[in-house]
Amino acid sequence: MKLDIVLRAEDISPKELKGKTAVAIDVFRATTTIITALEKGCRSVIPVVSIEEAEKKKEELLASGHGVFTAGERKGLKIPGFDLGNSPQELRDVSLKDKIIILTTSNGTRAIRNSEGADRILIGAFINCRAVAEVLASKYGDVIFVCAGRLGEFSLEDFLAAGAMTYYLRKKTEQALEISDLTAAAEKLFECTKGDLLGFLGKTKHGKYLKEIGYSRDIDYCCTLNTSSIVPEYAEGEIKI
Amino acid sequence: MKLDIVLRAEDISPKELKGKTAVAIDVFRATTTIITALEKGCRSVIPVVSIEEAEKKKEELLASGHGVFTAGERKGLKIPGFDLGNSPQELRDVSLKDKIIILTTSNGTRAIRNSEGADRILIGAFINCRAVAEVLASKYGDVIFVCAGRLGEFSLEDFLAAGAMTYYLRKKTEQALEISDLTAAAEKLFECTKGDLLGFLGKTKHGKYLKEIGYSRDIDYCCTLNTSSIVPEYAEGEIKI
Repeated sequence: MKLDIVLRAEDISPKELKGKTAVAIDVFRATTTIITALEKGCRSVIPVVSIEEAEKKKEELLASGHGVFTAGERKGLKIPGFDLGNSPQELRDVSLKDKIIILTTSNGTRAIRNSEGADRILIGAFINCRAVAEVLASKYGDVIFVCAGRLGEFSLEDFLAAGAMTYYLRKKTEQALEISDLTAAAEKLFECTKGDLLGFLGKTKHGKYLKEIGYSRDIDYCCTLNTSSIVPEYAEGEIKI
Repeated sequence: MKLDIVLRAEDISPKELKGKTAVAIDVFRATTTIITALEKGCRSVIPVVSIEEAEKKKEELLASGHGVFTAGERKGLKIPGFDLGNSPQELRDVSLKDKIIILTTSNGTRAIRNSEGADRILIGAFINCRAVAEVLASKYGDVIFVCAGRLGEFSLEDFLAAGAMTYYLRKKTEQALEISDLTAAAEKLFECTKGDLLGFLGKTKHGKYLKEIGYSRDIDYCCTLNTSSIVPEYAEGEIKI
């Protein structure tokens, strides 16, 4: 079983994805938001790349009688006119039962859409990393962790979450793991920092930015390990459990 | 004082280098070889990209009365017709006093040449990482660690050496360090693995390959910390102390 990591959504090539399971990761905050929304009973999340695409999709779904929310951010902030932002903590107070969420974010939705071409696309974050590892262990296919990155740059929190999934996978499977050097670095780094993820990741560029714009509680929540046991999957344009 | 890492020699842009100190790193084995050669009294090392360039340069230097060795590798093995390979351990038995070495390797010499555009280019490896940190601490300029990578891929040993230099720099300077997320990852990873570098790096793709082709002793040597106190510098086509 081979494991590798792609550091930025832009770097994925369809050739690399073929025949593999992709795990799309955007810890701060898209994939954490998606997992949280589905856990709260939301029917599905539809990732779209642009604001225009989100608004058009909402009209279509409303016309066919669905309950729909638009959600997303630009520069971390809620998009004007949208129903929701991209804050998993803010979802706590919203009733999402059977709703469809149309989500557009700066990095995460791109990582998911760019993973098309893989055999299956799972949605991962710290909150469900052990659950993702369990699914990977039961399927035995090669894996590529697709880190969203941040505005085209390396994202430490996504890299570390890929390391976390590798760490738990090693505990869950008896299969030999053939891991790339990048994956070995991520796994070891997770092993060293798992006791204080928040301390380590709170100092990252993205962590500091989110605190500045008032989302400290999101950082705390996104850095919590294994509070969720669901592993959403993206197929045919929709993310579902 | 800002610190950043470039993961592969191919990824450097002249814009990023401007006004900075570059540290070229190819732990397995080019920069370790260069430091070792200069420590043994070699007059200078001239990094060239192609075999043809090396042979042409040798003829020129011989004609002007210099003592010259060609050195280098392709696929880790000594280049046919060359005087030396790229093995720091093999240099131990060779008299290098006042000799000029013309070196061409698969990754390292490219990292050095591609760093042209920086204000100064230092040569770093594990064997001199504390010494590099001391030089960086005394100069106060922004730093970019240029990892050679391996055949266009991520190289864990180079990344970790950049982390080692950051780790020692933090101990040597009172300046505030403004480090990128990638540098933070490398520094933390070094902190966690410095007690058993050989165990961690011996399992890398490059480490395993070098063992397979008979260079286990090089791996041991290249993973040794701070045995050298020299910091070679590349300027005007030559590397000197």
